[in-house]
Amino acid sequence: MKALVYHGAGQKAWEDVPNPEIQRPTDVIVKVETTTICGTDLHILKGDVPAVTDGRILGHEGVGVITEVGSAVETLAVGDRVVISCISACGRCSFCKQGVFSHCLGDEGASGIGWIFGHLIDGTQAEYVRVPYAETSLYKLPESVTPQQGVLLSDILPTGHEIGVQYGEVKAGDVVAVIGAGPVGLAAIMTSQLYGPSKVIAIDLDPNRVEQAKNFGATDGVLASDPDWKEQVVALTDGLGVDVSIEAVGIPATFEMALDVVRPAGHVANVGVHGKPVSLPLDRLWISNIQLTTGLVNTNTTGTLLKLVAQQKLPVDQFVSHTFDLTDIENAYDVFSRAAETKALKVVLNA
Amino acid sequence: MKALVYHGAGQKAWEDVPNPEIQRPTDVIVKVETTTICGTDLHILKGDVPAVTDGRILGHEGVGVITEVGSAVETLAVGDRVVISCISACGRCSFCKQGVFSHCLGDEGASGIGWIFGHLIDGTQAEYVRVPYAETSLYKLPESVTPQQGVLLSDILPTGHEIGVQYGEVKAGDVVAVIGAGPVGLAAIMTSQLYGPSKVIAIDLDPNRVEQAKNFGATDGVLASDPDWKEQVVALTDGLGVDVSIEAVGIPATFEMALDVVRPAGHVANVGVHGKPVSLPLDRLWISNIQLTTGLVNTNTTGTLLKLVAQQKLPVDQFVSHTFDLTDIENAYDVFSRAAETKALKVVLNA
Amino acid sequence: MKALVYHGAGQKAWEDVPNPEIQRPTDVIVKVETTTICGTDLHILKGDVPAVTDGRILGHEGVGVITEVGSAVETLAVGDRVVISCISACGRCSFCKQGVFSHCLGDEGASGIGWIFGHLIDGTQAEYVRVPYAETSLYKLPESVTPQQGVLLSDILPTGHEIGVQYGEVKAGDVVAVIGAGPVGLAAIMTSQLYGPSKVIAIDLDPNRVEQAKNFGATDGVLASDPDWKEQVVALTDGLGVDVSIEAVGIPATFEMALDVVRPAGHVANVGVHGKPVSLPLDRLWISNIQLTTGLVNTNTTGTLLKLVAQQKLPVDQFVSHTFDLTDIENAYDVFSRAAETKALKVVLNA
Amino acid sequence: MKALVYHGAGQKAWEDVPNPEIQRPTDVIVKVETTTICGTDLHILKGDVPAVTDGRILGHEGVGVITEVGSAVETLAVGDRVVISCISACGRCSFCKQGVFSHCLGDEGASGIGWIFGHLIDGTQAEYVRVPYAETSLYKLPESVTPQQGVLLSDILPTGHEIGVQYGEVKAGDVVAVIGAGPVGLAAIMTSQLYGPSKVIAIDLDPNRVEQAKNFGATDGVLASDPDWKEQVVALTDGLGVDVSIEAVGIPATFEMALDVVRPAGHVANVGVHGKPVSLPLDRLWISNIQLTTGLVNTNTTGTLLKLVAQQKLPVDQFVSHTFDLTDIENAYDVFSRAAETKALKVVLNA
Repeated sequence: MKALVYHGAGQKAWEDVPNPEIQRPTDVIVKVETTTICGTDLHILKGDVPAVTDGRILGHEGVGVITEVGSAVETLAVGDRVVISCISACGRCSFCKQGVFSHCLGDEGASGIGWIFGHLIDGTQAEYVRVPYAETSLYKLPESVTPQQGVLLSDILPTGHEIGVQYGEVKAGDVVAVIGAGPVGLAAIMTSQLYGPSKVIAIDLDPNRVEQAKNFGATDGVLASDPDWKEQVVALTDGLGVDVSIEAVGIPATFEMALDVVRPAGHVANVGVHGKPVSLPLDRLWISNIQLTTGLVNTNTTGTLLKLVAQQKLPVDQFVSHTFDLTDIENAYDVFSRAAETKALKVVLNA
Repeated sequence: MKALVYHGAGQKAWEDVPNPEIQRPTDVIVKVETTTICGTDLHILKGDVPAVTDGRILGHEGVGVITEVGSAVETLAVGDRVVISCISACGRCSFCKQGVFSHCLGDEGASGIGWIFGHLIDGTQAEYVRVPYAETSLYKLPESVTPQQGVLLSDILPTGHEIGVQYGEVKAGDVVAVIGAGPVGLAAIMTSQLYGPSKVIAIDLDPNRVEQAKNFGATDGVLASDPDWKEQVVALTDGLGVDVSIEAVGIPATFEMALDVVRPAGHVANVGVHGKPVSLPLDRLWISNIQLTTGLVNTNTTGTLLKLVAQQKLPVDQFVSHTFDLTDIENAYDVFSRAAETKALKVVLNA
Repeated sequence: MKALVYHGAGQKAWEDVPNPEIQRPTDVIVKVETTTICGTDLHILKGDVPAVTDGRILGHEGVGVITEVGSAVETLAVGDRVVISCISACGRCSFCKQGVFSHCLGDEGASGIGWIFGHLIDGTQAEYVRVPYAETSLYKLPESVTPQQGVLLSDILPTGHEIGVQYGEVKAGDVVAVIGAGPVGLAAIMTSQLYGPSKVIAIDLDPNRVEQAKNFGATDGVLASDPDWKEQVVALTDGLGVDVSIEAVGIPATFEMALDVVRPAGHVANVGVHGKPVSLPLDRLWISNIQLTTGLVNTNTTGTLLKLVAQQKLPVDQFVSHTFDLTDIENAYDVFSRAAETKALKVVLNA
Repeated sequence: MKALVYHGAGQKAWEDVPNPEIQRPTDVIVKVETTTICGTDLHILKGDVPAVTDGRILGHEGVGVITEVGSAVETLAVGDRVVISCISACGRCSFCKQGVFSHCLGDEGASGIGWIFGHLIDGTQAEYVRVPYAETSLYKLPESVTPQQGVLLSDILPTGHEIGVQYGEVKAGDVVAVIGAGPVGLAAIMTSQLYGPSKVIAIDLDPNRVEQAKNFGATDGVLASDPDWKEQVVALTDGLGVDVSIEAVGIPATFEMALDVVRPAGHVANVGVHGKPVSLPLDRLWISNIQLTTGLVNTNTTGTLLKLVAQQKLPVDQFVSHTFDLTDIENAYDVFSRAAETKALKVVLNA
C-alpha cells in the first residue's frame, strides 16, 4: 500500500510500504477513507519529537472501514465504518478504568501515553492502518455523520472540548476567554456552547481569525496586539476578570495572558503544546484561588460529541478549509504548514 | 483596653488603645478569650505586608464572647461565645454567594480580599475586637468545643482542609503527599482523614516533624534531605506517583517537589504562601493532565469542622504546643518565632 | 394603595389596603412595576393552601423600583430596579449558607420555607411590597433586561432550570424527556439548552403545546395520548430510554410516565406540585440505579439566568402570551385560569 | 468437579458436575479458594428469581487462583490470585464506558444486567468457575489482603459503599442514618467512615445488632421498635433531620422510615432489595428538595476498596461470623438462613 513515511527531520515521502497485519487478537485493520493533518505532525517533521523514528507512518486521525478483525473482536465487524481515535485505550489499566485514556498503560508503544499512532506505531496517513485495542478505541460512525465530520472527532474536537472546556469547567453564565483562535482554540469555542456561557471572547493576533471565531460561537473578539487588550477583556466582564481562560497556543506569552485575565477563583485551562517552561507568579497567585489544568486529550467524550454532531448540534464542517485526495498529501502538508498565508484550518484528505 | 499594636517593621507593643466601638448595624464587639499567632503575623512583623500600617492591632484568629451587637444583628446576642473567622464575609457579594468568602467584595478594608483582621482593620490580639459582617462571619462555639479547640478553626484547620485537601480533591483510596509538616501541613494531614486516603506521606527536612506527623494521621514519612526522597515517595505508590501532592511551605524548591511526585492526572494543591514566582515546566506537564490549585482559605467549611471537633472526630488539641496568658503575648511571639528551636506548633493565648 | 387580597377560597379583590412599611433594618419597600400570576396562585384561590389566610395580598413574582430602604441596607438604594425573587433568603442560616434558599430558616413567615410572599407575608400583586432580607433576596435588573423579562426570573425560569435541569443533571449529549409542556415544562426545555443535550422531547396531551415546545428548544414531540407514546420516546434514544426525564405536571399518571421512559442509571427530576402520594415501583427500580429528585426552587441561579438573558442567550419573552394593566388583574386571573382555552402561558401585569 | 446446584425452589445439592471450560478468548477459569453466601442466594432458593433455572450453579462471590486463560487474555496469568466481582463487565458497552458495570450490555446472560454469576451463568459456589470478560471483571488480590478479606469485596463491601454511601453522597460533617444493621447496612456504616461523617446512627429492631453496629463505626444506635425512634434520631441532629438516610432492608416500612428522618435537601439511598412497590408521599416531598437513589452495585470501587483493605483502613474481617469447609456448604446455608438465631453475618467457605 501507499503511506506517508517519516524519514527524519524535514523528510517525508508518500511511498510503498507493506500492508499492515493483525498482530494481536484485539486488533482490527481499517481501510482509511479520510484523514487529516495535525499541528503535531508538523512538530514531528521539524524533528521536535525524537520518539518518532525513521520509517514511521505518520498521522493519528482518520475515518475508515474495517477490513479485518482479530480473533477476540466481537462487537466490531468487517464493513463497519469507524472513527479512529488519536488515543489508543487498552480499556483495562488503572488509567483507562478512570477514563484517563490519555495515559493508558497498554503495552503498544510506550506505557503511560495513549497517543501512539504516527508516533510509536504506524499511523493513519496511509491506505490501511492496524488499530490495536480496537473495541475500546474505535467509535462506529453514525449514519447521519459524514466521514469528513467524523475525522474532526479523532482529535481536534475532543481536545478543545475535554482539555479546554471540561477541564476549564465552563458553566452556565460564564465569561470565557480563548487565547488563540487556531483550530484547537476554535474547537474550544465551539464546544463551550454546550455549557451555556454568557460570553466567549476570542483573542488572537490575527484580525481575520478573531472575526472568523464568531462563526464558531465567539460573542466577542479582542486583538492581542492592542496595547489595551487586557482592559478590553476585563471590560467584557463585571470588572473582575473572566471565569475561565483557555490557552490554545503554547508559548510563555500566551500562557501569561491567560493568567492575566482570569478572576479570583477562576480557571485556566492550558491546551497549548509547550516547548519551554513558563514562569508562574505564585507570589501573586497563591492567594487567588486559581485552578490551572493541563492535559493530553482523553477522548472519553468522543461518543458524546458524535451524538451531538449526528443531531446537528455542532457545525463541525466549517473547520475544513481545504480538501485533497489522499494521494495528494504532500501538497496538503504544504498548504497546512503555511496556514497564516493559506488560511488553512483543517485540511482533509479523502482516499 | 490593651492590644498588640504594630509599629512598622520589627516593632510591636502590648499597649493601651481605645476600646473598639460598633460602627455599622451589622457589627458586633467580642471580648477575646483566646487567640493565637499565625506565621502571617511574623511576615507582617518583617515588613513583608506593606498594607499593614503603623498603629494596626494584629491577629486574625480568636474565640470570645459577644459584648455588644449592632442594630441589625438578630441571630447573635450578647453572651454568645463565638469563633472569629480569619475571613470576613459580607454574605451578599458575588463571591460570598458562591462560597468564595476569601475574595469578599465587602467594603471593610480592601475590596476583593476577605482577610482584613490584623491587616486592614484592627485584629484579635487584643482584649476586644470589632467584628464586621458578624452574622455571616462568626460561628457559635458548640458547648462541647473548648475555646482552645475553637481558635484552631479560625484559620489553620480550614486552610489545610479547604486549600490543601478539598482543592486537592483527596478521595477514598488516594495516596497523598504533604510537603512540609509545619502547622498548616499537619492541618492538611489531619483533615485528609475525612476523605479516606489509603496513605498520607509527610515530607519534611526535620526528622522530628516527620515523626510527629504520624500523630496527626500520616501513614508514612520521608526525609526531604534524603537524596532518593523522590524514589522513596514513588515507591509508596503503584510506581506512578501520588494522587495528590500538597505544598505547605511556600518556596520554589518545595513547589518543584510537589510537581515531581504527582502522577499523570493527579492534583497539586498549593497552600504555601509564596514570595517569588516559580518555574512551571509546561514543556513536560502540558501532556500530564495535572490540576494545580492555589488559594486563600474561604472558611466555608468552618461550620463543618466545628461539628467534627464537637464529635471528637478531629483531635485538634495536639496542635497546641504552648499556652500563655494574653498579657504575655510578646513572650509568645518570641517562642513562636523560634519554632525550629522551641518546637512550637501553635501557641495559644488565653485572656 | 391597591392590592389583590385573598378572602378565603374562591374570593379575591383588588382593593385598598395600607401601604407597606419598613419593619426591620434589612427590609426595603419596592414599587411594583411588573408582576405575573403563577399556577400556585390558582391553587391558593381554590383553598388548597390553608396557610394562606383571609386578608393576605397574593403574588410572589415581580420587578419594581426601590422606594425606601432599612437602616442596615448598604448595597441597594432608592431608585434601584430589582427582580423580586419568589424565595426570601436570610443569607445566614445553615440552608442559606449551602445555597438551599428554598428552606431558609429565617423568621419571616414559617421557619424552613423560603417561599413566603403571597403565602405567609403580603405579596407582589400590589402597588408596593415590603421585601425582607432584601440584600440577599433581590437582584438588580441589568440595563439590557426589560422588566417583562425580569419578572420571568422571579420563579418560572429558575424553577425549570434548578429543579428540572440542574437536579436532573442534564449533560452534553443527553436525551431529555419533559412530561408536560406548560410554562414550567417549557422553562425546563429552554434552560436545558444551556447543558448541550442532543435531544429534548416534549410530551403533552395537547398537540398545540407539543408543537409550541419546539420554539422553546424541543427537538422532538410526542403526544401523550398516543397508545405507543412510550415506544415513540424510546425510539428517539439508543433503545435504552432517556437520560433524564423531567416531570412538570404533578399527578400520579405523569410521574409514572417519567419513570417509564428513563434508562438504567438515568435521572428523574420531579418539578410538578403534587397533591397526592404516588406509587414507586421499587420492586422494579431497586436494581435500576435511578436518581430521583424533588424540590422547591432555590433561586440560587437567578443571577446566572439574568446574565444569560442580558446576553440574549435565553429568549424568554416568548413565555408572555398576554399583558394587562395591573389594575386589570382580575381579568388577567380569568384569562390565566382558562389557559387551555385562552392558550395563556404567562400573563404579565404592568403598573 | 463438585458444585452447589439449584434444582428449583427449595432444592439444592452439592453434586458432581462437569468442569467449566474456556468458551471465549476473553474468559479465564478460576479455582475457587474462598466463597460465601449472599442474601440473594436465599431469595433464589425461595424461587423468587425465576431467571435462575434448574441446574444452575449458585454463588456470585469468590476469591481463587487462575488455572487457565483465553487466547486474548494478556494481563492475567495462570497462578494469579483474584477477587471475582459479582458483576461481569464487558468493558466496552456504553454502560461500562461510564462505569455503570451493573448494567453491562455484554452478551453473556442477559443484556443490560451485570450480575450474571449464579443467576444467568454458573456461579462461584463450586470448585472451579468460568469467568467471562476476565480482564475487566477480575481484580488481582494484593499480597497483604487475605482471601477471606477479598471475598468480602466481591459484593457486600462495594454494595454498601457505592449504593449506600456514594449514591447517598455522604460528606464531611454529615449525620447519617442507616436503617437495618445486617451485613449490607454494616458495610454502609463501615465505608461511610471514608467520607468524614460526624455521626452514623444505626437503626434496627434487634438490640444486639444495634450494639454490634458500633464496632463497625456507628456512633449512635436507635431501636426501631421504640415508639419515639424518630424523635430519637432527629434529636441526634440539629433538629432538622439527617443529611443522608440509607435503607438497607427492602420493605415498605423501612423505606418509609428512611423518608421520615431525612432533612430538607437531604439524600435517601435505597440499598434494600424490594419485592413490592412503596408509596412515595410526593404531596409532602415535592417541596423538600430530596434526592432518592436506587441501584445494583457497579463494583467500580472494588479496586479502591482493595487498596484500603491492604492498608488496614477497613477492618473487614469482623464481617465473618462463621467459616466452613467448602464441602460443608449445605450446613453453611443452614446457619446463614437462620441468621436471627445464629447471629450469622457473613459465612465464609474455604476450599
